[in-house]
Amino acid sequence: MHIKPLGKNVLIKPLTEKETKSGILLPASAKEKPQEGKVIAVGEGKWENDKRVPLSVKAGDKVLFKQYGGEEIKVDGEELKILEEEDILAIIE
Amino acid sequence: MHIKPLGKNVLIKPLTEKETKSGILLPASAKEKPQEGKVIAVGEGKWENDKRVPLSVKAGDKVLFKQYGGEEIKVDGEELKILEEEDILAIIE
Amino acid sequence: MHIKPLGKNVLIKPLTEKETKSGILLPASAKEKPQEGKVIAVGEGKWENDKRVPLSVKAGDKVLFKQYGGEEIKVDGEELKILEEEDILAIIE
Amino acid sequence: MHIKPLGKNVLIKPLTEKETKSGILLPASAKEKPQEGKVIAVGEGKWENDKRVPLSVKAGDKVLFKQYGGEEIKVDGEELKILEEEDILAIIE
Amino acid sequence: MHIKPLGKNVLIKPLTEKETKSGILLPASAKEKPQEGKVIAVGEGKWENDKRVPLSVKAGDKVLFKQYGGEEIKVDGEELKILEEEDILAIIE
Amino acid sequence: MHIKPLGKNVLIKPLTEKETKSGILLPASAKEKPQEGKVIAVGEGKWENDKRVPLSVKAGDKVLFKQYGGEEIKVDGEELKILEEEDILAIIE
Amino acid sequence: MHIKPLGKNVLIKPLTEKETKSGILLPASAKEKPQEGKVIAVGEGKWENDKRVPLSVKAGDKVLFKQYGGEEIKVDGEELKILEEEDILAIIE
Repeated sequence: MHIKPLGKNVLIKPLTEKETKSGILLPASAKEKPQEGKVIAVGEGKWENDKRVPLSVKAGDKVLFKQYGGEEIKVDGEELKILEEEDILAIIE
Repeated sequence: MHIKPLGKNVLIKPLTEKETKSGILLPASAKEKPQEGKVIAVGEGKWENDKRVPLSVKAGDKVLFKQYGGEEIKVDGEELKILEEEDILAIIE
Repeated sequence: MHIKPLGKNVLIKPLTEKETKSGILLPASAKEKPQEGKVIAVGEGKWENDKRVPLSVKAGDKVLFKQYGGEEIKVDGEELKILEEEDILAIIE
Repeated sequence: MHIKPLGKNVLIKPLTEKETKSGILLPASAKEKPQEGKVIAVGEGKWENDKRVPLSVKAGDKVLFKQYGGEEIKVDGEELKILEEEDILAIIE
Repeated sequence: MHIKPLGKNVLIKPLTEKETKSGILLPASAKEKPQEGKVIAVGEGKWENDKRVPLSVKAGDKVLFKQYGGEEIKVDGEELKILEEEDILAIIE
Repeated sequence: MHIKPLGKNVLIKPLTEKETKSGILLPASAKEKPQEGKVIAVGEGKWENDKRVPLSVKAGDKVLFKQYGGEEIKVDGEELKILEEEDILAIIE
Repeated sequence: MHIKPLGKNVLIKPLTEKETKSGILLPASAKEKPQEGKVIAVGEGKWENDKRVPLSVKAGDKVLFKQYGGEEIKVDGEELKILEEEDILAIIE
């Protein structure tokens, strides 16, 4: 089964704290903590001025996203999230 | 009888939990759970810059949509929904 | 006497439940129930980029509209409604 | 004395119930009842894309307008209203 | 001393009831009563599409403006108001 | 040390009541009293249609600004404010 | 590890009070105190009219930013912030 996000939606697999060995530790006090995740699939982009604006992230990118954005879904046992591109803050390289 | 959605409206038949054998299980805790459905008919798209922007979904597509979007109607005994395209998150292939 | 809607306004005659033999039954639980009606007259459309965008419905169309949109008026004893085009969800054919 | 509305403002003389012999009766239950009036003067229209968009009503038109829109003024003893064009729903012919 | 309004701001001297012999009497019941005033100075207009849109009023115009719009200032003992152009409803000729 | 405002931000030194010998006295009753100040530095303007829209005020201008707009900072002992251009109502000449 | 901000996001290292020897002292009374920081990395800018609008700050700039904007993260032990460009008020030179 394949989930194909529409428009500027992005399908993400959030990483658990154990998986994020990148050195990013999120402060416990922050009200809305950004979270790490891996991009699974991206939409074709939003329609603007008669063409689509391609997204800035691609499948495979490790990203930092706003924790409370998007919708949670469970696909074949995996917990995923569908976010809009604006909820992604940065790529972790 | 035929329902022809206007503009960027989409007519959808929500699938019951038994019908969604796709492996998507929605977490019970999520406040706004996305739901699966089958597209029955789509509008011609929104008017923008002197032409219509065609929708990204078509009749027959299996989609994931936001549960609280749109309007519920009952047509010939079937419970359907009319949603705006933005309430559809992804196509399930 | 003739009512000529302005811009993107549409004049509609809502149908009573007895008149809607189309098979559409609206769920009693829905907070905002779409309603059936017949288009009596339409405006010339909204002004955009130096021209008018014509409306997608025309006099005579049977339509599904959002129940709480628009303004109620009574003309020659008939109860009518003036709605904006966006409050019309679909054409019933 | 002459009142010249600015931009998309319209000067209107609301008609009393006795004057509206047009057959339009407004339901007492409607929260915001549209009201009949006669257009006295109109503005030159709103500035858009380097020109003015002319209004769709003209002095002398009998119109249906939203009751709670606009500002009430009294000129030479007459109770008038200054409305924006969007508050006018239809022309009564 | 000279006050030069910026952009679409307009400097106005509100007229007292005694000064408004124009025949306009504002109803005591109206929540937001339009008020008469004389334009003292106007801004160069708002920047739009690489040029300034000139204002529709000029110094010396007698105008009707919304009572609660704008900011009150006192210049050399005179009570004045700085309003945005949109708060001016009409020119009184 | 030099503070260089970004975009449409303006750095202002608010004047105390003793410094404002201009004759402008602000009414004590006004909820949001405009205040006088001297422009210290201005941004390059907002990006619009592929160029920057230059600001309408320049360093040295004496201006009237909305009291509650902007952010207070203290630089080398001086109390300054960073405001957006829209919070400036007029130039005092 | 490298954090690459997306779009108009900017990665900033906030400076502690001891590090800000610039002479800027923020008033204790201000509800939302601007804060000093050093830009670590910037996004490619927002997509507008078929191109990206480059940001006005660059890595290495010392900036004044709104305290409550953005998201806090901790990278390799350092407390950083990801802000949108609009939350940066000025460059400190």
